[in-house]
This record gives sequence, structure tokens and C-alpha cells, in this order.
Amino acid sequence: MKFLKTLSVAGAVAALPTLALAQDAAPGFDEIGPYIMTTLLFLVGGFLVFWMAAGFAMLEAGLVRSKNVTMQLTKNIALFSLAAIMYWLVGFNLMYPGDFNGYFAFNFVPTVLEPVGLSAADASLDYASVASDFFFQLMFVAATASIVSGALAERIKLWPFLIFVIVLTGILYPISGSWQWGGGFLSEMGFYDFAGSTVVHSVGGWAALAGALILGPRLGKYKDGRVNPMPGSNLALATLGTFILWLGWFGFNGGSQLAAGTVGDITDVGRIFANTNMAAASGAVAALILTQIMYKKVDLTMVLNGCLAGLVSITASPLEPSMFGSLWIGAVGGLIVVFTVPLLDKLKIDDVVGAIPVHLFAGIWGTIAVVFYTPETSLITQLTAIVCYGVFTFVAAGIVWFILKATTGIRVSEEAEIQGLDTSELGMEAYPDFTKG
Amino acid sequence: MKFLKTLSVAGAVAALPTLALAQDAAPGFDEIGPYIMTTLLFLVGGFLVFWMAAGFAMLEAGLVRSKNVTMQLTKNIALFSLAAIMYWLVGFNLMYPGDFNGYFAFNFVPTVLEPVGLSAADASLDYASVASDFFFQLMFVAATASIVSGALAERIKLWPFLIFVIVLTGILYPISGSWQWGGGFLSEMGFYDFAGSTVVHSVGGWAALAGALILGPRLGKYKDGRVNPMPGSNLALATLGTFILWLGWFGFNGGSQLAAGTVGDITDVGRIFANTNMAAASGAVAALILTQIMYKKVDLTMVLNGCLAGLVSITASPLEPSMFGSLWIGAVGGLIVVFTVPLLDKLKIDDVVGAIPVHLFAGIWGTIAVVFYTPETSLITQLTAIVCYGVFTFVAAGIVWFILKATTGIRVSEEAEIQGLDTSELGMEAYPDFTKG
Amino acid sequence: MKFLKTLSVAGAVAALPTLALAQDAAPGFDEIGPYIMTTLLFLVGGFLVFWMAAGFAMLEAGLVRSKNVTMQLTKNIALFSLAAIMYWLVGFNLMYPGDFNGYFAFNFVPTVLEPVGLSAADASLDYASVASDFFFQLMFVAATASIVSGALAERIKLWPFLIFVIVLTGILYPISGSWQWGGGFLSEMGFYDFAGSTVVHSVGGWAALAGALILGPRLGKYKDGRVNPMPGSNLALATLGTFILWLGWFGFNGGSQLAAGTVGDITDVGRIFANTNMAAASGAVAALILTQIMYKKVDLTMVLNGCLAGLVSITASPLEPSMFGSLWIGAVGGLIVVFTVPLLDKLKIDDVVGAIPVHLFAGIWGTIAVVFYTPETSLITQLTAIVCYGVFTFVAAGIVWFILKATTGIRVSEEAEIQGLDTSELGMEAYPDFTKG
Repeated sequence: MKFLKTLSVAGAVAALPTLALAQDAAPGFDEIGPYIMTTLLFLVGGFLVFWMAAGFAMLEAGLVRSKNVTMQLTKNIALFSLAAIMYWLVGFNLMYPGDFNGYFAFNFVPTVLEPVGLSAADASLDYASVASDFFFQLMFVAATASIVSGALAERIKLWPFLIFVIVLTGILYPISGSWQWGGGFLSEMGFYDFAGSTVVHSVGGWAALAGALILGPRLGKYKDGRVNPMPGSNLALATLGTFILWLGWFGFNGGSQLAAGTVGDITDVGRIFANTNMAAASGAVAALILTQIMYKKVDLTMVLNGCLAGLVSITASPLEPSMFGSLWIGAVGGLIVVFTVPLLDKLKIDDVVGAIPVHLFAGIWGTIAVVFYTPETSLITQLTAIVCYGVFTFVAAGIVWFILKATTGIRVSEEAEIQGLDTSELGMEAYPDFTKG
Repeated sequence: MKFLKTLSVAGAVAALPTLALAQDAAPGFDEIGPYIMTTLLFLVGGFLVFWMAAGFAMLEAGLVRSKNVTMQLTKNIALFSLAAIMYWLVGFNLMYPGDFNGYFAFNFVPTVLEPVGLSAADASLDYASVASDFFFQLMFVAATASIVSGALAERIKLWPFLIFVIVLTGILYPISGSWQWGGGFLSEMGFYDFAGSTVVHSVGGWAALAGALILGPRLGKYKDGRVNPMPGSNLALATLGTFILWLGWFGFNGGSQLAAGTVGDITDVGRIFANTNMAAASGAVAALILTQIMYKKVDLTMVLNGCLAGLVSITASPLEPSMFGSLWIGAVGGLIVVFTVPLLDKLKIDDVVGAIPVHLFAGIWGTIAVVFYTPETSLITQLTAIVCYGVFTFVAAGIVWFILKATTGIRVSEEAEIQGLDTSELGMEAYPDFTKG
Repeated sequence: MKFLKTLSVAGAVAALPTLALAQDAAPGFDEIGPYIMTTLLFLVGGFLVFWMAAGFAMLEAGLVRSKNVTMQLTKNIALFSLAAIMYWLVGFNLMYPGDFNGYFAFNFVPTVLEPVGLSAADASLDYASVASDFFFQLMFVAATASIVSGALAERIKLWPFLIFVIVLTGILYPISGSWQWGGGFLSEMGFYDFAGSTVVHSVGGWAALAGALILGPRLGKYKDGRVNPMPGSNLALATLGTFILWLGWFGFNGGSQLAAGTVGDITDVGRIFANTNMAAASGAVAALILTQIMYKKVDLTMVLNGCLAGLVSITASPLEPSMFGSLWIGAVGGLIVVFTVPLLDKLKIDDVVGAIPVHLFAGIWGTIAVVFYTPETSLITQLTAIVCYGVFTFVAAGIVWFILKATTGIRVSEEAEIQGLDTSELGMEAYPDFTKG
């Protein structure tokens, strides 16, 4: 017989008789089992989606040039941390306001957790703990912000970027998120976006697009009508980041079932895992084959982005499609990336890591593809929502970027950009022992 | 009170009364608890084994030279993706055919998941959801394919390798897997291989051995009777890969309990975790000590492979041994690696990452070691199975390799190999900013 | 209907009738549910804390110079493996001895797991399986040892370091751990340390401090009254390591609830996750802002350590504080790191990765901060415990370091240190293709 850690807590000993008493009257597993399982789903799903923060960091650190790696890492850990604080401070209650007008909730209050040792009588036994729900939802807003950091890499100033993150995660994302997941007007209209192809991914993509347009391309990227390739410095990290994101996506989509305590719910979570995995695989294979055909050489960065596009594509409806449905929906996502990455370059929109093709274009695709397998969804409604999210986020993010540009400035100096942001802005190289003289 | 994501789904509102009705008649947790827990075990176990794909990718990327890293990463993400598709398309039902002749099932049908919102009445309450089971089993076939990619690195062509993967994951592995886990003749005979020292690891190892023999060693590896060391380019990644594999192995072995909803089952999963961890630790320590004694210097790559060999060794029976049993079984695995890596070199079999010692030799050892702690197992039966798997996989894989060699060719040109596969075959360096001129 | 893996086991068929029989009489989920859920908590929490071993390895490999990376990786995988063996061999039963005098238990026996297929009647239904408990607790001792390896990097000999690890993980940590978590005198006194700001982190920090003082700084680190910066070789790895540690900390703190099968317990685990995340975020943001203000440049390594210090700070009481409490407690942790890293340099104590500020100083802070939110705790008791742990660990570790210094020696030769430990001690470079000539 071991002493338990909790037994060593002074208060615990006193609490024991109460506990025993409570158990006599306590509801059984038929009542509390679903609450426990759904809370567990949020915690496990939440830590998996947390892990995506590391995935974005590695993906982006691998796809920028070595002279900008420290900056990209700094942005990634800082944006996650700021998102965590902002979503607690205002975001969560702005996004899930309860009864509201359906468009905007004046609900700027910090998140309050349930008391320690919540009794079953005080719990929402038909759902899950507030803390676990908050923890899970918080990770989604962080993912949205991560999307922006990749697109704008290698030339944006640190602090203006972080101010944008504060606005995005505290205000913009929660407002538009409330339209659907907070029970707002799009949800009323019948819009379907299971885990956020639009609500999360395309929102991140629109914010990135607005930023990329206002910020302009990297120096020398488009010169004399040619696209100057600026290869990423560490494809091993980029691949690691992709695998991390793939892993995290099981939590992203699976946790969005929002319930795990019935046969139907846990079986659905299983379906979501299988479909999510299939879409990632088919997105990767589609890019693999297409780059071989188009360029006669497989392009690893396209395969990685194809995989991610497959994941984004299935996110709007990972539960309802058959596995074959997931296969072709994900594959189309992969194809979209291969076709639209050069398209953006043609338009001289410089998206360093391919975030706009992956999260915006494949996100739109996934939101449309919902109608093929998901009952009672309508193409018109899906398109309406896509437009609503696009207009709002593009305009609102654009305004924020413009204000930042006009005030603090958003772009580092030419010399700093040429020298690299690591030494010019941060005074710290990521790989001081390696980089070629 | 928050609005739930699912409440925003049009259909959900309509479904609520049904749900309430269903709950009245629904079976309680005594009936559905085991199904929910086992499904959860497969999902958590499955994502852990998925994560091993990243582990293999990092391990292999770290152990090849920098000029071949992009290729190795490409192979790893491509092989996983193809395995995921093939196992869905034919593998799963070929491997778990239900009633069959015990040797080969003519069961080439894609996997079909259970319907959305499965009712308890329609579920296999004594097991788990089909999707979760498929998801979990799929990860094992991907691991098998990963083993091959490491051994044949730095000289094999991309597409012939991927064609081999398609055959291995869609046909070969499922056939031989059905002999044991599909209820085939070896299972009838009393063969014991809990999580796949033989069914997964040695099968991967045999396929790799056949490939290595037919493909031949890297240029310059064996010259003038000497073994020319070709050190891996990034031991940090190789170590990361090993830690990832170690982590994933808890899912690999623990999930193979195939049940988690009783006191006995979840306690057994705990035993498996503790034993698996011990075998990894003792495999690493054995290699640590032995390389210090033999070479007067600790060899990190041996320690990493010793750790992996410990894991492979305990995989055939991670539940039954005592912790001391796990310690010495794992340690012998570590010793095997240290002794057989040079042996392969003596035979001029070029296995870039040590996959054959780790997965084949330690896999055989682990399958034999079953008899020490596992009741009702017989050495003869274990040896019979080892031979059956060896002959079938080595011959079948050999035939596939031969056909590929005769048709597409399997080896890159000498110039391409010397130049490195990254620039010659893919036109993309993994570390463009670092590599020494 | 699929054949199950277990069905292929000879013994399983015979066992089926027994199983059916047992189920008739078996207790229902109301009795076994908490045991199953808590065991699951330990397994999931345990694998998350296991993952921290990879986090420490990557953090340290990223913060040492490239010539010492192989050595640092070797130390990390070796120390974890040795800790796993020692904690099984003596540590676990020394730390959790049951009835004892409260200071030291003469209980040097290896851990014995419960039998395979434990029946509910034989299980501790009010707790969890022994194996899962052992697995979880083991990971904490490994974390303690990891803290030491970072501080002493780049100049300590491999084997003396590993001998220290053996003593620390087998004897020192278990003895002092028993004072609190084994039901010893500090636990009797009312000391509160939920997941180990003191019991784990400051113990690691004290052992590191004793080692750093006896070992002395790296050659050339403090010269002519100036601190010579020796920048880490790979900040991408260091950032990855930080994200890994952050992820693992959800298991570290969440699992320390030691129960998950009631509404109150699982809700508390949710609180812990949310608070832990907040403290990490605020620690990072505090360091972000403070380094900008103090140095006019954000310092990524400080942000990473600030994040970790936030985590250490909340570890003594991650359940009780409000989220705002977690925010400011974590932020103070981040500030402590920024202020004390230069302080150590002023004292010429060379701590390569900042382990002493992060784990010792923030650990002390977190242990004190307990009194702000945790009922029935007293500052006197907290300080008493901090002193007890400090004196015991610093003295005992110091004695071990002295004995090692006097016998085997603990420091590599000057030439070896200048050349780098990888080639001088291990004959193996971590990045042979990259390092600048």
C-alpha cells in the first residue's frame, strides 16, 4: 500500500469523510461517465492541438532561410503565449457568449474556471468541464495566429506582428467564431463547419493574405519578371513540423466531436481519426504524383503542403464522408496547393511557407466539399459563410495592418532584411556554428 | 452555459429528441464502458504509433549523409501515405478476413467504417469501433514499411521503392499478418507474438534484408577489404527519432492489449507500459556499457539502436515478463545490435541505419524469449513461425525486388549517388545554407 | 466480425468461459470506473512526462556548442535509462515505503507489478494499478536527473556524471521525495507541493548547483572580468525542446491529481491544464517584454527559459489558483529567470542552459507562491521544506560530487574541452557535414 501524493496534502485528510459521504449519494457512472469522457476528450484533444504550435514553429523554422530562424521561432512561441492570454482575457467569452444578437457579443470578461473539487450536482453533466472546454478552444485560436506568422516571415517586424496577434486572437477570431460556434447567425442559417476549415483555417489565411498584400514581398523575390527561389534552410524540421501537425490534427478534428461518452460519440471520434488520416495521406500522395508529372521531380515541400492541405480540406466535415470521400477530398486539397503556390507567385504575393494555399484555398475547398457527404447542408449556405468570413476577416485584418503600417511600421529596413532578422533585430543566430560565411 | 459546436449543426437539433429517447432505453456504462474504453485505447494507442512515423523519419534523416536527407524525408512521408491508402483499399480485410483457410484470404475489399452515430445496439460491445481498430492496425503496417526505408537509404530510387511499399503494405504484410492476427494457421498452432516482434518487426527486417542484398551496398562503403564509415549527418535528429519511437512504442505494445475496459485489462496495459519502458532502458544501457568495453568509447548510434532493439525484443511479450525479465530481455536485444552491426558489414550487407540488427535480429530474439515468461508457449512453435515469416517475406519481397530491378531498375546512377540523391533526383537540398562546399 | 489479436493467443480461448463467469459476478463501472480512469490518467500522464526526456535532450542539445552535442545527447538518453532501472531497483519503494519513521525508509526492494489479468477483487479500487503508478512516478525522477545534465554540460566526463545519476535517482531523490510524497515528516507538517516545484525541480536544481560549483566554469567563460558568451548551436532544437517540455508538463501537473474517475477529479485535471498553460504563456511573455525593455532586443533563449520558469512556478500548486493567479505567478517566474541568469554569471557559476534559474530559483518561488491561493498552507512550513530539501540535496549531492572528483575525476582535460567532447571523448561528431572548419 502506497501513500498517495494527495494524502500528503493536509486538507485532503479532513476531506475524506466528506468524500465518502458524497459517494454514498453520488450519481453513478451512467450519469457522470459521459461528462468524464468528454472532459477527457477535450484534455487529450487539447494537448494534441497544443502540439500543433510546435508543428507550426518547426515547419516555419524549416522553411525560412537560416538568417531568419531565430526570429521565426521567437514569433511562434510569443504568438502562442499571447493568444493564450488574450483568449482567456476576452476571447473565449466573446466567442461563446450564450444568448446574443448573433453578430457581436459585448461580453468582454475573462474566463472563470469552475471551483476546485466541483461536485457532480454543480457540473454540466451533459457536456464537460469549463476548463477543459476553454483549454481545447484556446488551442484553435492559437492555430489561427500561427497561420499568419508563416506567410509573413522573413520581413515583418516582431512587435507589430505581435500586436496584430493580440487583436486577432482577442477580438477578430472570437467575433467571427461566434457567428458559427457561438450560436450566431451563420449557425442559425445552417452553416456546417465541423472543426474549422473556414472558422479557423481560412480565417488565418485571410488575415495572412491581407498582411502579405500590405507588407509586400521579400526583397529580390520577384525580380525582372522572374521568381527567385529562396529555399528553406532545414527540410528535416519542416517535415517534422508536418508530422507534428498531422498528429495534432487528430485532436483538432476528433476533439471537435465535443462528446465521447456514448457509443455513438466515441465511434464517431474513431471515424474522424480514420478520415482525417486518409485525407492527409491522399493530399500528400496527390502532390507527390502531380509534382512528378508536372516537374519530373517530386517536390518535398509540395508533398508536405499537400498533406497539410488534405488535412485542412477534411476539417470542415471529417465525420460524415466515407473513407473514399476523405481520400478524394484530401487529394483535391493536395492538387490545389500544387496549382496555387505558383499562382500566388505570379500575382507577386509572397507567402513564405505556402500558408495561403494550404489554409485559405484548401479551407474554402473543404468548406464547399461538405455538401457531398453531409446531410442537410447547402452549397448556398456554405458559400455565404465563406464570403462572410472572407469579407470580415480580410477587411478587419487589413484595417489593423494598415493602422500598424501607418503608426509603428510593419517592415524591417532593407539592410536588416538583407542581413537577416536574426542578427539585425535580435542579435542572435539560430545556427551560429554552421552557417556558411 | 455555452453553445456547443454540435448545436450549431442543423441536423443536431432535430436529432435531440431521438437522442433523449435513445438514452431512456440506452444500455448503461456497465455494458458500454468497455467498448468506450477500448475504442479510446485504440485511438490513443493509434496516434502514438502514428507518431512513430515521425520517429522513423527523424532517425533516418539523422543517420544519412546531408546530401540524401531530402530524399529520405520524402520516402518517409510518402511511404506512410501510401501505406494508409493501401491498407484501407485491401490490406485490412485481407489481414482480418474472418473465417478463412488460414493461409490466404481472397478478401480484396476496402475497409468500410460503421455509420455515423452508431447506436449501442449495433455496436460490437465486446470489442471496439471498427474505425478505431482500423486506425490502430494501419499504423503497424506503416511501421513495417518504415523499417525498409532506413536500410536501403542513400542509393535506392524513389518510385521503385514506393512501388515496393505498395506491394508490402497492401499484400505481403496483410497475408502473413493474417496467419497470426487474422486467426490463421500460426495462431491455430499456438504461436505467440503479442504486438509483433515477428509479425511487424522481423517482417520489415526480412523485406529490408532482401532489398539490401539485391540493391547492393553504397558506393565506396566496402573498399579494399575495409569498411568505410559514412557517419550520419545529424545525431540530434537521430536521437529525437529514437525518443519519438520509444514514446510511440507505448501505444504499439499497450494498445495491443486490445481491451481497456476492465480492471484486468487496464492493469495489464500498465504492466505493458512499465515493461516496455524497462526493455528500452536496458537495451540502451547494455549498448552503452558494451561499446565502452569493446571500443573504449561510448557509441551514441549504438546506444540509440540498442534502445530500439530493447523495444523490439520485448514486443513479442510485453505483458507477461516481470520487470526483471524485461530488463534482461531488452539488454540482450541491445547486445545483439552491438555484435551484429559489424557482422553485417563483414558480410558486406549495407544497412544504413541498422534496421536489420534492430528489427530482424532483435525481433527473432524477442520472439524466442517469449518462452521464458509466457505460459503455454513452445519454443518449437515460436521457431516455426519465425521460419514461416522469414521464408515467405524474404522470398516474396525478393521476387518483388527482382522484378523491380529487371523492369524499372532500383538503383540510382553512380553519378547521382556520388552527388547525393537530393540534388540529383529531387533538385532540393535539405540544408542549403549549411553544407560544406 | 474481425478476429481479435487476443483470440489468436492459445491461452485466451481457454480463458473465455472464466471471463464470462467473472463478468457475471464482476463489480460494475460505479466501482471500477474510478480505478480505470485513474490508471489511464497515470498512463497518459506518464507518457507525456516521458516525452519531457526528449524535451530536455533537445533543449540541451540546442543550447550547447556543436562540438559537444553528441555528448549531450548521449548523457540524456543514458541518464533516462539508468534512472528507469534505478527507480525500479530501489527508488520507488524507498520513496513510497508505507509506514516508516518519516525520514528514511530501509526499503531497498525492487518494484513488483501486479499479476497479469488482475481481478477487480484484488485491485486497489480506490486508487490505480501499481504499474501505472510506478510508470508515472518514474518519469519524475528522470526529469530531476535531466535538470543536472544541462547545467554541467560541455565539461563533465560521461561516466562520473552517470554515476551521479545512479545515486541521485536511486537514493537521494527517493529519500527526500519520501518526506513529502511518501507520507514523511514534511507531509505531516502540512507542506504543500502538488507536482514538485520543490520535490522535483529544486532538488534537480540543488544537485546541479552543487555540481556546477565543484566542477567549475567552462574554460574561457569568465575571463578578465568579462562573461564570454558561448551561444547554443541550434535554437530550433532548443525551441522544440521547450515545446516538448510544455506539452509534457500537462502530464506532469495534470497526472499529479492522482485521480480522474469522479466529476470533481476530472474537472480539477482540467483546471490544472488551463492553469499550467497560462503560467507557461505568462512566463514567456514576461521574459519577452523584460528582455525588450532591458536589452532593447528580445532574447529567444530567455523567452524559452521564461516559459519553463513559468511552468516550474505553477507546479507547486497548479490546481488552486485562479487563471489570473497562474498568470502572475508564472510571470514572476519568467522575470526571475531574466534577472538571475546574469546573476549566476556574476558569481561565476556556469550553468550552460540556465537550469538553476529555471528549476531552482523559480522552483523556490513557486513553492512560496503556494500560500497565495492554496487554503491551509503556511509560509513557514513552505520555507521550512525549501530549506530541508536545499540543505539535504546540496550537501548530499556535494559529497557525491566531491567523492567523484577525488576518485574518478569529473572534468575532462583542457585539450578535450577545447577540442569538444564529441571528438575527444566519443569520437563522433553530431553534425559532421556542417560544422565550420
